[in-house]
Amino acid sequence: MSRRLNLLVFSGDYDKALAALVLANGARELDMEVTIFCAFWGLLMVRDEDKSVSGNKSFFEKVFSMFTPKGAEKLALSRMNMGGVGKGMLKKMMKDKEKPMLKDFLDGARKKGVKFYGCKLSQEIMGFKKEEFIPELEIIEVYEYLKDALESDIELFI
Amino acid sequence: MSRRLNLLVFSGDYDKALAALVLANGARELDMEVTIFCAFWGLLMVRDEDKSVSGNKSFFEKVFSMFTPKGAEKLALSRMNMGGVGKGMLKKMMKDKEKPMLKDFLDGARKKGVKFYGCKLSQEIMGFKKEEFIPELEIIEVYEYLKDALESDIELFI
Amino acid sequence: MSRRLNLLVFSGDYDKALAALVLANGARELDMEVTIFCAFWGLLMVRDEDKSVSGNKSFFEKVFSMFTPKGAEKLALSRMNMGGVGKGMLKKMMKDKEKPMLKDFLDGARKKGVKFYGCKLSQEIMGFKKEEFIPELEIIEVYEYLKDALESDIELFI
Repeated sequence: MSRRLNLLVFSGDYDKALAALVLANGARELDMEVTIFCAFWGLLMVRDEDKSVSGNKSFFEKVFSMFTPKGAEKLALSRMNMGGVGKGMLKKMMKDKEKPMLKDFLDGARKKGVKFYGCKLSQEIMGFKKEEFIPELEIIEVYEYLKDALESDIELFI
Repeated sequence: MSRRLNLLVFSGDYDKALAALVLANGARELDMEVTIFCAFWGLLMVRDEDKSVSGNKSFFEKVFSMFTPKGAEKLALSRMNMGGVGKGMLKKMMKDKEKPMLKDFLDGARKKGVKFYGCKLSQEIMGFKKEEFIPELEIIEVYEYLKDALESDIELFI
Repeated sequence: MSRRLNLLVFSGDYDKALAALVLANGARELDMEVTIFCAFWGLLMVRDEDKSVSGNKSFFEKVFSMFTPKGAEKLALSRMNMGGVGKGMLKKMMKDKEKPMLKDFLDGARKKGVKFYGCKLSQEIMGFKKEEFIPELEIIEVYEYLKDALESDIELFI
């Protein structure tokens, strides 16, 4: 039976999302099964950058949606972001070494069959609609996350 | 034998405390055993809001105690806190959806029999007295945390 | 067979490095095997404070190297750092209780045989040379981290 990696991505930082997706891609290349459960700020990583919904949202939900990053490449660094300068510098350094960008790691994870879940409670509180996420994202309850984590070999909170 | 969830709560952020307590409550509802080991800023989550001790504390300990949040509901968001505006907005969004507040999740965890531990080293450094925490909190050494984690099925650092 | 603790240290914060090294020292005292995989900002913790390399670095790499902390004791707190005042206060409180400093925990971990790894991808992106780290640090790929984590009893992302 194949080994399993289970990531709970809580953070909405560019660098932590990068860490999660590098681990996810690496684990798939080792033929491990990988699930990523996006909760709270982690949901920002799996927003579909081309879609947004404003109808049927409360005032706070609209404001929240507007002031939070829309998709992986829009996330900010957890430190040294300096209004985007630090992040630009990091991306330049990644490009100089011909490393893939965060978006590439996300696309890679999606193509390699990483299973993406979103936390129902977080989604409801933040007022996101299912259509605002990458299409394969499945919304689940915390119980289902816990059951999946129980069957996994490595569980990390990122 | 029942399955076990072991959380090391290091963070003192409102949103991360919420994540920890949602997981703890969910796991108890699945009949898992749950232990939460509060270390460093994580101790702020389990301060008893009605009690404080100033006698027998050094100057630094008094200052520290005064400038750190007193109990779960007083914690700040890890991001978008904006001097409390962001947190107020989040709480409003939670209330609109009739979701429990952090305090409710903490009370739920306590009633459901989640075992709360505090890190001895952190407590000593920060100068907190045992009476300043929720009464069932047991102060333990890092060795005891490690032994408990070794017997657990899921271990997360939050 | 001895039990194993596997830490992925992603953070470059003083307090989180302290947590990682307290766990590592404690686990070694329980005769557990311990590996610390330093990725991204975590690499700052294992920079050798006495060495730096500026030749053969791009402009961005030099700037990056100059504006990031050089070694464990130079890291900043994840919160309440207040330009170093908070960190100074914490260190004073640790000293008053005759607790070891971060540097002591790092030295302890090194002497006790904790295995230190550095993430190859992070090292390449940040442009650090092998000579800039503590000498026993071994640079490995994410696959090797995953294989090590699979063989461990406790895995944490710090």
